Amino acid sequence: MLSLTVAPGSQDVILKAMWFSLDPGFRLCMQESLDPGYREYAQKSDDGRFLSLFELNKPVQGWGIFKVLVSDDESFRHGDIVKALTNVAQYPIVHKGGLIFKIKEMAIPLSYHLGVLGMSGLTAWVGVNVIGKAKAGDEVYITGAAGSVGLVAGQLAKAKGCRVVGSAGSDEKVRVLKECGFDDAFNYKVESEWDIVLTRCFPNGIDLYFDNVGGTMLEAVLDHINFNGRIVVSGMISQYNQERSSSIGIRNLMNIVGKNVKIEGFMGSCHMDQEKIFFKEVFEYIQASKIKSKEYVTKGIENFPKAYISLFKGENIGKCLLNVEI
Amino acid sequence: MLSLTVAPGSQDVILKAMWFSLDPGFRLCMQESLDPGYREYAQKSDDGRFLSLFELNKPVQGWGIFKVLVSDDESFRHGDIVKALTNVAQYPIVHKGGLIFKIKEMAIPLSYHLGVLGMSGLTAWVGVNVIGKAKAGDEVYITGAAGSVGLVAGQLAKAKGCRVVGSAGSDEKVRVLKECGFDDAFNYKVESEWDIVLTRCFPNGIDLYFDNVGGTMLEAVLDHINFNGRIVVSGMISQYNQERSSSIGIRNLMNIVGKNVKIEGFMGSCHMDQEKIFFKEVFEYIQASKIKSKEYVTKGIENFPKAYISLFKGENIGKCLLNVEI
Repeated sequence: MLSLTVAPGSQDVILKAMWFSLDPGFRLCMQESLDPGYREYAQKSDDGRFLSLFELNKPVQGWGIFKVLVSDDESFRHGDIVKALTNVAQYPIVHKGGLIFKIKEMAIPLSYHLGVLGMSGLTAWVGVNVIGKAKAGDEVYITGAAGSVGLVAGQLAKAKGCRVVGSAGSDEKVRVLKECGFDDAFNYKVESEWDIVLTRCFPNGIDLYFDNVGGTMLEAVLDHINFNGRIVVSGMISQYNQERSSSIGIRNLMNIVGKNVKIEGFMGSCHMDQEKIFFKEVFEYIQASKIKSKEYVTKGIENFPKAYISLFKGENIGKCLLNVEI
Repeated sequence: MLSLTVAPGSQDVILKAMWFSLDPGFRLCMQESLDPGYREYAQKSDDGRFLSLFELNKPVQGWGIFKVLVSDDESFRHGDIVKALTNVAQYPIVHKGGLIFKIKEMAIPLSYHLGVLGMSGLTAWVGVNVIGKAKAGDEVYITGAAGSVGLVAGQLAKAKGCRVVGSAGSDEKVRVLKECGFDDAFNYKVESEWDIVLTRCFPNGIDLYFDNVGGTMLEAVLDHINFNGRIVVSGMISQYNQERSSSIGIRNLMNIVGKNVKIEGFMGSCHMDQEKIFFKEVFEYIQASKIKSKEYVTKGIENFPKAYISLFKGENIGKCLLNVEI
């Protein structure tokens, strides 16, 4: 029999885990051996903008959905459903000052609060609207388009009247992109002459590139970007496992000068002030079936490493989640 | 005896050249053999935002200061001083619809209208204020700092309360930067371990990088850029003579994601709507001795090629000008 108590006055909250989010960005929290320049991606912050660097033989952290078991914090009581940043554990504790938020909107699957209506969705929304300033008629290209961020970004751009082309790493993913309303999509592993495929897909050039991969694809795009083009970068999954000395550089950045192009990196977590507007808008799109959610669910906390690695093998379509309900 | 006439109704204006501006960007108008991606830098436009591609055995074009000799355009009369985009010639003609503007402010040397108060100055001003959003206390790094744009950009950033460090390619240039109020400056050819010198010059990192050179220096800066840093790119002089296959790419662009950094290319000529505000502000800085103008003058129209090439040898300090008054 499990007996749980919290010290009175501690404001501790003991949780029972239901879902954990798996994010490519974790990779940058575990990079002892990698390019020191990348390390600042993971920094200490107490507002959730950054995850801490993972330490060997310590629990990793992540965002999840939980049921409150025991609470000394008067904002939460037994049975409440919350979203929180915790150790990846079945029964994590959130201490005073930790990041924990009550979930109010229950008319959607709980997992959506981590995916399409969580940080992945916010990242897509910020990239398309705030940084990318997408407007009707824009030619939009999205890489990693079948990933948790790309899939929402593409559907959002479509909802705003853009023409949207996505690329992904399998024919199955390409099929899903088309099912989700992308105007065109291609398998970048099969159609590997990217200059040729971008010429075909974008006869009028690219106005907005939502970059989730970086590397040589970014170089290819820079040859097709239009005057006043915007390149928004929420991740560079092709780069996370690269040592600098063996990585391929971008050789045509010069193109940004003559074309007045901006390339802007961003993290959804730094735009939490936009969260309410985002949530309302995307919630309505979901209810109107303008945005579909796709999820790739692995079960069992013991499968966290396997689920995480699947992200880098490109096995997931949509949001990669760990279901730990027992 | 020179006899000049214009056809009545033609609105032609015949000019006598006094000064021509020499700009690194011309390089991109003459690039038959170069990376096709760069070619769009030079495009046809009738508003002066872009120069046309130079054609073999045809005159090159440039901005200059002229005296009006004969005019069929009622806006101009004999003796007026004008700034215009013309063929590089002693007696060029501006046809109807051409770019020609009367110079009103005569309290400064005429050449300033091409340099510190011309396109070079506007480019610096747009980069520092509009794109770079410099604010008091920012740590600002400027490359090509002794060039026509960099020298104004550095002094502008100083006037706004930033801490400014510049780099240039000779000890003489470094001396001029310090004379012009830069907080620190270094010779990048002598101090060639850029990671070490940037660590020394920017113990608190770089908030704004005004990039005039591109290439490996940009890569070095990306390891020192701060959270929410801005990289404004008005030119990449290290890249103009590079074929892509032999150029060195930027391998750490990933840094822009975790640090929310933007890299934005721009041309001063695309911000002519800001020209009046710019002119007023910089004119006042000049009168208050907060901004000094430096010029590198070559005499004689026959020396246009030599003067132009001097830009790429880094011979000039400040604005590179051709004086063709006879």
